[in-house]
Amino acid sequence: MDDFGAQTTDLLRRTPQVLRALLVGLPDAWTDTTDSAAGGWRPKDVVGHLVTGEMTDWLERTQRILEHGTNRAFDRFDRFAHEGRDSDASLDELVERFARLRADNLARFESLVSETDLDRRGLHPSLGEVTLRQLLATWAVHDLDHIGQVFAAMAGSHDADVGPWKAYLGILLRREDPAAVAG
Amino acid sequence: MDDFGAQTTDLLRRTPQVLRALLVGLPDAWTDTTDSAAGGWRPKDVVGHLVTGEMTDWLERTQRILEHGTNRAFDRFDRFAHEGRDSDASLDELVERFARLRADNLARFESLVSETDLDRRGLHPSLGEVTLRQLLATWAVHDLDHIGQVFAAMAGSHDADVGPWKAYLGILLRREDPAAVAG
Repeated sequence: MDDFGAQTTDLLRRTPQVLRALLVGLPDAWTDTTDSAAGGWRPKDVVGHLVTGEMTDWLERTQRILEHGTNRAFDRFDRFAHEGRDSDASLDELVERFARLRADNLARFESLVSETDLDRRGLHPSLGEVTLRQLLATWAVHDLDHIGQVFAAMAGSHDADVGPWKAYLGILLRREDPAAVAG
Repeated sequence: MDDFGAQTTDLLRRTPQVLRALLVGLPDAWTDTTDSAAGGWRPKDVVGHLVTGEMTDWLERTQRILEHGTNRAFDRFDRFAHEGRDSDASLDELVERFARLRADNLARFESLVSETDLDRRGLHPSLGEVTLRQLLATWAVHDLDHIGQVFAAMAGSHDADVGPWKAYLGILLRREDPAAVAG
């Protein structure tokens, strides 16, 4: 693959390490809160959602593009598939499950996709035509988006503990008002 | 220290590992962009700001509380001290500098502070009275806040690459409009 492909898979390979460093063995006091004050996802829900992506989305769509191009749209992504599936799994178990799936999927991606394939097109059921290059970039930015959600949830778990400093901590203010600006 | 103290220092000890897993050796293509589309900080600026906190803020304020209570307000924090200081340092160097300072500061904190000290009070120059417990919680949530900023900056570096998927990626939409909601 080209620089873009190598740089993007580099990031994708880091995500399990980041989640391990952040979450494995972390006391529950940091992980029992949702990313939004009005609801949303706990860190465990986020990792479950990332597991779903590895199980049913990124590689499936890669193969769909390579095999069918724009002739057959992607299956829709189930954003709530983790809810029933993962209820018995611990956060630590989910991080390790994600790490195994990600490693397998990166190996499969790299064996399936060559540099010229990145310009091949597929059909998203809502967004229309997309390229395999865009799919790869989205796989990585989707990781960043959801890990950011883990940070918001973790911060929220200690909302009451920071006292008056909350006024300076945008990550806490935005859990209640997305447009809030820290002082 | 009590559970709160142990759980909070646990998180503080993780931050250098998270930054290493995420950033060290990462291609520049992921790290040359700011967290807000209108400006803001690159990952290097964020890590520089965390370095400043270790150099002049968290331990200094801890000692101020232990030595002077509310009789002498904290010095104000210089949010831009990194700008001149770190211009010659690479991102990887800053991560390692931060890791050393953090390890030293945690060791100092744990040697200075006992469980009962956490209820001692100090004086913030703008926020008024705060406890050492609130300072410790803020030290940790401040990490989370700024690492979240690193994720936004990294996502922003690939804003153009995701194509139509941007409509689903809140981390990209919020760089332009903090109140944006992903589709």
